[in-house]
Amino acid sequence: MATLCRPAVSVPQYVITMEETLELARSRHADHPQLGLALRLIENTGVRTRHLVQPIAETLAHPGFEERNRLYAAEAKARVPLVVRRALEDGELRAADIDMIIYVSCTGFMMPSLTAWLINTMGFRADTRQLPIAQLGCAAGGAAINRAHDFCTAHPGANALIVACEFCSLCYQPTDIGIGSLLSNGLFGDGVAAAVVRGTGGHGIRLERNGSYLIPGTEDWITYDVRATGFHFLLDKRVPGTMEPLAPVLRSLADHHGWDASDLDFYIVHAGGPRILDDLSTFLQVKPEAFRHSRATLTEYGNIASAVVLDALRRLFDEGGATDRARGLLAGFGPGITAEMALGRWNGTPRPAAPQGSR
Amino acid sequence: MATLCRPAVSVPQYVITMEETLELARSRHADHPQLGLALRLIENTGVRTRHLVQPIAETLAHPGFEERNRLYAAEAKARVPLVVRRALEDGELRAADIDMIIYVSCTGFMMPSLTAWLINTMGFRADTRQLPIAQLGCAAGGAAINRAHDFCTAHPGANALIVACEFCSLCYQPTDIGIGSLLSNGLFGDGVAAAVVRGTGGHGIRLERNGSYLIPGTEDWITYDVRATGFHFLLDKRVPGTMEPLAPVLRSLADHHGWDASDLDFYIVHAGGPRILDDLSTFLQVKPEAFRHSRATLTEYGNIASAVVLDALRRLFDEGGATDRARGLLAGFGPGITAEMALGRWNGTPRPAAPQGSR
Repeated sequence: MATLCRPAVSVPQYVITMEETLELARSRHADHPQLGLALRLIENTGVRTRHLVQPIAETLAHPGFEERNRLYAAEAKARVPLVVRRALEDGELRAADIDMIIYVSCTGFMMPSLTAWLINTMGFRADTRQLPIAQLGCAAGGAAINRAHDFCTAHPGANALIVACEFCSLCYQPTDIGIGSLLSNGLFGDGVAAAVVRGTGGHGIRLERNGSYLIPGTEDWITYDVRATGFHFLLDKRVPGTMEPLAPVLRSLADHHGWDASDLDFYIVHAGGPRILDDLSTFLQVKPEAFRHSRATLTEYGNIASAVVLDALRRLFDEGGATDRARGLLAGFGPGITAEMALGRWNGTPRPAAPQGSR
Repeated sequence: MATLCRPAVSVPQYVITMEETLELARSRHADHPQLGLALRLIENTGVRTRHLVQPIAETLAHPGFEERNRLYAAEAKARVPLVVRRALEDGELRAADIDMIIYVSCTGFMMPSLTAWLINTMGFRADTRQLPIAQLGCAAGGAAINRAHDFCTAHPGANALIVACEFCSLCYQPTDIGIGSLLSNGLFGDGVAAAVVRGTGGHGIRLERNGSYLIPGTEDWITYDVRATGFHFLLDKRVPGTMEPLAPVLRSLADHHGWDASDLDFYIVHAGGPRILDDLSTFLQVKPEAFRHSRATLTEYGNIASAVVLDALRRLFDEGGATDRARGLLAGFGPGITAEMALGRWNGTPRPAAPQGSR
């Protein structure tokens, strides 16, 4: 039985506030015919602060795809080891106990992926499996949990380490001024996260079932246009409405497990934007408060892509967790449009809430 | 018990011979101080023909990363469905029977990956899991087999589809003239492959064990330099010597399974270059003839990256397969330096050899 332990999360030191974001949009796009709409959309995200790997002046410059990607690798190497060490501690494992590293990231590209560097520098065994995933976008956080679950099921007693490394600010494209791009420029943030999935023992969420779903005919709703200047993120205006078709899918997964998706004890979902949380609340008939961890991530960090679900889960742990055997749903949403969903039970007694912001 | 069924393989219609490759090297690099060495290295590959998605004149031009990647997507959509249909036929499954698509490719980048398009256009279920892997290079063929094995083990009765899509010619970089690049320009080819891994039933290789290994300290031996012009493949001259440290790893995997790596019935390995096959023969103390399928792939198609292991396996099927319960080893090698290894037994009686080149 695979147990998803407490995620460790770290966000970079450079902070941009909602007010600064709006002011930048006003000053840089003063003549934009849809500036008013862009400002309203950004305000509606509810994102109060985001954390960036560079000061805003450097973030706004585009030094070229090569330099961006070089920076991605350097920042990943500087920031990932901290969360990996904490995740191992929280999972009460050593690096040598890990049998697979699942590394998810859609904001930079390395071959070999960071998994090779992690194995070489952090004491992982040479026979650790490497599973790097770059093409599932924000859904990759959920996919990582589900593939770790599968791996631990296939190899009883084995342990997996999930790492999500997202520096969305390194995909900022100054020349993209469509309304979806202006919104994205005010929505996405940077962050890294890691969590252990233990094959035996461990305190956290016992994973019981997983599933995936692609909404038919939506493959061009969230895409990367790959150019000499790097990845250009394209966001269709229909994306915020995707919870209406996905809520029945989440319900169906719960039904197959004998659970009622409207009556679970916790909900840890990707907070792509505020409407996702509002609509899930409506269509699943669940109080908005149930999504407080996802909403807090969105408010404090923005959309940190595949790391969102891990940060929302970290907040549940910080709150003290849930009662033993409490039933919950986890889900990542991303390009495809794809949902990666999991059902599990809290394992262990609640713990005292951690001091806020401790990790 | 997961069974890897007969792979379907397709190579594009444009052919370049060894003689044409050598002539191109001579004419384009007439003043290169190491031209003689480059020509000898290319001759030593033993690659007689390679297949390309475009005529050679177009291949040699660099239309920019954006256009290259656009071409990658178009060629993938044009060429992958054929091998997917054949793989499903050979696995005696319908698209709707597939529970996971593992798509491996390191020669183009799409988000969402081709998995979304395949689900939308080829009749796969909306709840098919998607596992795109872009960062394991040539080792990804072995990784795909192993992750499919894990998935079928974790979900009894489930089926996986592996797709390998490699258009190495779209990563040709005219300005890279290091000796490793000149060699690579004469070594890599294009090809697509697909195979079904059935959770129950099926004729092929029953997968029994898998493993991975990273040779410590070699992460910069095979790398992509990611630039505005796309992926620049860097090949260290120490790579051909990596079978000496990897042979004991293959031996150890077999030992743990109670098998002797020197005494198996078939060997299906990534043919990165001729020395890999020669050295494996030496260090595993296995007759060169045991690697005939891998060598035939190298000779006729060049190194088609993650598709090599699937094509070598296809040739074993074409030869009529092996005797029931014959024991074999499969392995992919790639960046990291990573080996992705599997052990399995032939399942079923030998079948008549297929007419050569039938598929």
